[in-house]
Amino acid sequence: MKRLLDPQSLRALARGCAVLGAGGGGDTYLGLLQALQAIEDFGPVPLVDLDELADDSMIMPCGGIGAPTVSIEKIENGAEGGVLRDQLEALTGRRVAALIASEIGGSNGLLPVAWAARMGLPVADADGMGRAFPEVFQVTMHLAGISPSPAVMTDERGNLAVFQTVSGQWMERLERAAAVEFGGAASSTEYTLTAAQAREATVRNSVSLAIRIGEAMSNARGNPVDALIAEVSGYRLIAGKIVDVERRTTSGFVRGSVVIEGLAADTGRLLRLELQNENLVALERGRVLASVPDLISVIDSETAEAIGTERVSYGQRVTAIAFACDPVWRTAKGVAVTGPRAFGYDFDYTPVEELADARD
Amino acid sequence: MKRLLDPQSLRALARGCAVLGAGGGGDTYLGLLQALQAIEDFGPVPLVDLDELADDSMIMPCGGIGAPTVSIEKIENGAEGGVLRDQLEALTGRRVAALIASEIGGSNGLLPVAWAARMGLPVADADGMGRAFPEVFQVTMHLAGISPSPAVMTDERGNLAVFQTVSGQWMERLERAAAVEFGGAASSTEYTLTAAQAREATVRNSVSLAIRIGEAMSNARGNPVDALIAEVSGYRLIAGKIVDVERRTTSGFVRGSVVIEGLAADTGRLLRLELQNENLVALERGRVLASVPDLISVIDSETAEAIGTERVSYGQRVTAIAFACDPVWRTAKGVAVTGPRAFGYDFDYTPVEELADARD
Repeated sequence: MKRLLDPQSLRALARGCAVLGAGGGGDTYLGLLQALQAIEDFGPVPLVDLDELADDSMIMPCGGIGAPTVSIEKIENGAEGGVLRDQLEALTGRRVAALIASEIGGSNGLLPVAWAARMGLPVADADGMGRAFPEVFQVTMHLAGISPSPAVMTDERGNLAVFQTVSGQWMERLERAAAVEFGGAASSTEYTLTAAQAREATVRNSVSLAIRIGEAMSNARGNPVDALIAEVSGYRLIAGKIVDVERRTTSGFVRGSVVIEGLAADTGRLLRLELQNENLVALERGRVLASVPDLISVIDSETAEAIGTERVSYGQRVTAIAFACDPVWRTAKGVAVTGPRAFGYDFDYTPVEELADARD
Repeated sequence: MKRLLDPQSLRALARGCAVLGAGGGGDTYLGLLQALQAIEDFGPVPLVDLDELADDSMIMPCGGIGAPTVSIEKIENGAEGGVLRDQLEALTGRRVAALIASEIGGSNGLLPVAWAARMGLPVADADGMGRAFPEVFQVTMHLAGISPSPAVMTDERGNLAVFQTVSGQWMERLERAAAVEFGGAASSTEYTLTAAQAREATVRNSVSLAIRIGEAMSNARGNPVDALIAEVSGYRLIAGKIVDVERRTTSGFVRGSVVIEGLAADTGRLLRLELQNENLVALERGRVLASVPDLISVIDSETAEAIGTERVSYGQRVTAIAFACDPVWRTAKGVAVTGPRAFGYDFDYTPVEELADARD
């Protein structure tokens, strides 16, 4: 066991997950409350390394699916994880040994902890993205050729859906449509795999990374924004004030854009973020400052707390930062699945550090 | 066994299913071709009475779901029924003993025959509607309190979905959304039940009825329209020409309206049909001539062949007829689920024979 996820580590985890969410993954405040309540009721959750698990032990990647704008109003009933686990075990005839987050970003990094506490299961120190992405198949397991099937979805009413699809893209279509019917958000598991597979097919140590990021923010002696940027080796894109938010909840996603007007040293600059659940691209006068798969996070300029795309609003004093994604997303296959063109943009991916160098 | 469903009886069945479809249930020409090919390849299908089956034998109600406008262009691969059966057996741990049509109307009355031929299974002489209705839970099994779960859906690509829902209405929502993603049409089974339950919870002898209707049309010595009306104890609403069709495929349904201008004895009259997959109401100058759950069918004025809502078009010489639904739909529960108010109309159901009497 690497550590016990206790209240203090969960608070750090929540801060880190918010940053790694790149705007998405759901509101960490709600996820943190669920996780804190669950460990109060059932005890702290062991965080284990994938190497500690037997090769053939079954890992359940899980989390919420839908639009973060919905999930802040439509709350889980808490039992969803157990429903997913029971169904997955019935379908496979095998026991789930540990949970991982499908995406470490946002509340989706915390939900598996809340669910694991209720089940008496450990959480493994890994996830399927190292961040948050909007679509179901945008996970490292997809790159590694793991099947998304069988996937299980449930809602807070007790409805249940199981999907076996011919591709990850079909899984996205069917799960998204069901999430929309469920009211715009639901809970799901897909890409079930063994610990042996997970060692090669996930982003490892991402729970620990999120905790470390959260701790760096909390322990900052100086400016927490500087501490955060140092911790993630990030780049400050702009510091200023949000002057425009265009946001619509559609087809199971939140889509829109945010404009940040520079203040102080950035006076006279305007940064535009375009978003689909997550912040996808940062543009200044048409020039790309950062893009998927690299992470773009909007953080409070005072506290460095990351602000999700469902919470950004006019007048907030924020700093937009960007930092490198996990290297797996920078491979040709990774860029094809999560790069700018995968989201309909007509430009190629350039790593954020090269874009930053070009600006200097 | 009541009879073997051979090519001749299938041709009669197709004619009858078209009439009982009340405009919906899918194009019987395509369903007939599938059924004829299947029995040519695998031999004729036994039509059995529910009384011939052991009490606990499992009956699989099945058919297509979606918009008939789509299903005339997006054809099944033929294996769907087997996929549904295999999955249902895996889910329940029991063998399927016989198929029935979820709805006898349209091609949905023929698909179970095509599938049963491939599986070497009989078709039972019953269905869940005695006609066609647009929504999943508008079946007699729903009235009888049979659970719609587990439901299985599949498409021609091999995608598979299983739903367990808290109500028939939730089943409709989730299956409809999946059908839309599948391209507007798919194959499904729901409301699995035992033969003992089916004896009380289905419309019995509806396959025989459809064959009898088809035979009455074929064997008519005089006008086939008169023969059809006599066979179903129907009412002639208008005979004329279609002068307007408004039809859109939306949310997994075809919706719209058809206007028939009277000819000959009906000159000067205009009949408006409103439709959602099926013909829902027939209106003349705002007065209701017939409505769901009674059947309204548009038939060719020369041949009496019924024309589905996906095929009606300007200029066709047609006769609109209406006739009584199965008595189960005229109960308070039946009217609540399939009466005019269930489709958003602000008037109460009046049986077609009372409406006809009032006109005399």
